[in-house]
Amino acid sequence: MYDVAIVGSGPAAISAALTLKLHNKNIIWLGSKKLSPKVEKSEKIANYPGVPMVAGPELNRLYREQIEAMDLEITERQVTNIATSRRGFMVLGGSDVYEAKTVLLATGAVSGKGFPGETELLGHGVSYCATCDGFLYKGKTIAVYCGSKDFEHEVVYLAEIADKVYLFTPYACELTRENIVFNPGKLKAIRGEKKANGVELLDGVTLDVDGVFVIRSAVAPANLLKGIELSGADIFVDRNMATNKPGCFAAGDCTGRPYQLTKAVGEGNVAAHSIIAFLSE
Amino acid sequence: MYDVAIVGSGPAAISAALTLKLHNKNIIWLGSKKLSPKVEKSEKIANYPGVPMVAGPELNRLYREQIEAMDLEITERQVTNIATSRRGFMVLGGSDVYEAKTVLLATGAVSGKGFPGETELLGHGVSYCATCDGFLYKGKTIAVYCGSKDFEHEVVYLAEIADKVYLFTPYACELTRENIVFNPGKLKAIRGEKKANGVELLDGVTLDVDGVFVIRSAVAPANLLKGIELSGADIFVDRNMATNKPGCFAAGDCTGRPYQLTKAVGEGNVAAHSIIAFLSE
Repeated sequence: MYDVAIVGSGPAAISAALTLKLHNKNIIWLGSKKLSPKVEKSEKIANYPGVPMVAGPELNRLYREQIEAMDLEITERQVTNIATSRRGFMVLGGSDVYEAKTVLLATGAVSGKGFPGETELLGHGVSYCATCDGFLYKGKTIAVYCGSKDFEHEVVYLAEIADKVYLFTPYACELTRENIVFNPGKLKAIRGEKKANGVELLDGVTLDVDGVFVIRSAVAPANLLKGIELSGADIFVDRNMATNKPGCFAAGDCTGRPYQLTKAVGEGNVAAHSIIAFLSE
Repeated sequence: MYDVAIVGSGPAAISAALTLKLHNKNIIWLGSKKLSPKVEKSEKIANYPGVPMVAGPELNRLYREQIEAMDLEITERQVTNIATSRRGFMVLGGSDVYEAKTVLLATGAVSGKGFPGETELLGHGVSYCATCDGFLYKGKTIAVYCGSKDFEHEVVYLAEIADKVYLFTPYACELTRENIVFNPGKLKAIRGEKKANGVELLDGVTLDVDGVFVIRSAVAPANLLKGIELSGADIFVDRNMATNKPGCFAAGDCTGRPYQLTKAVGEGNVAAHSIIAFLSE
């Protein structure tokens, strides 16, 4: 049982982790050791107080050093589901479940709204987790949306199980496998009544499938934790960074604009203090 | 007419100034070139992301370099009053008035509640501004509370005008002047009905005076801008750092806990973006 599960590894998560560690909290930190790809891609950051005109990769290097110096560790898992329990939260990271008294969502901005049908059919033929649900599709036909090159190992894993994979990528994919059909069109919607049974393409064609995997860096908050209150696409928080779910806090781009590094570290700091206060109650 | 008047020179103000400058706003920045004394006095800061284990004076040095590199300038004035006008705000800094469309309050935490009678008699024999109101007390007897060594030049100025000065300091004061009575006791309250006419000491003695000057690094927000909404002693703000006064925003310790550097820079960033949005309306 951890004191806190931190979900995400961008500036908000880093800021919260530093403060929580100083307060000797027992932390499980689920994210990527590469830290924020958004920071990594920043050419120059001009308005981060104390680190003038810094290039993104350099800032991530500074963060990484600071994380190591504080004996903090990131466990490389993609979190695809969080459930409340009597004692706190059950966090599904990869195919492992982590129990924690509190959760900090620092999952970044979700780009786009997901595909029509995605949220409705989630858990009914639509899955966010290859390692969790892949085995269900042995010898079957599936569609896979892979949002980033970083997740191609999950596509390979699924292609080893399934008979046929329709793969959709928003980038030029260089995977080669016999049973993968690469970008047969642009994915428009996921179809099915009680269970996903097809994907509709932009040109109107529908491909029959037994299941659909959607693999993105950030899962929309509403799909991550059932019943979490949103404001538009953002997680609704108060000035203490508390969500509507007691013990669940959020910080950074997932709480809305401005999408700024400095705002994110500030919110991570506030969230950490709120978590410390919550744990001491 | 400035786009924005920034009041204060700690981390929240610095963060906001960097972002406002990037957006080419016309800024008047009123504060101290020494920046935050609270940061300066910090031995080690362990949880500021990107600048590991930094000593306060070193962080202030980094801030100063960054401010200079961005061609930002701090005008050394203590702000003692802000009034709304038809076009925005009139900010009294020292004895100069600055007009701005918007105001950012980044005044830090106010320590203590002020003296009994202080708020009630402000403008009626109680003043926060030696240069503004000193001339009223030529040849008279006044009491002066001086909160910090940094403001002793104001005490000297007042002692040159007044006949007799009862001086109260929370630190060991090394001023020497014939007409100053140093710490005749501990100041308990300011007395007077319609106008201040005495100061009461902790031992029960009351000294008759014609006026009282209270000189502190931070003026309580309610005395700075009439009608500003508070939450306890803190300035009440929404998630955009807007106060109840349209065009007036606040950030940093003056908006409440946690009193943290990282929280302050985050709020300064958000406030700057809100100011930019407000100005474009």
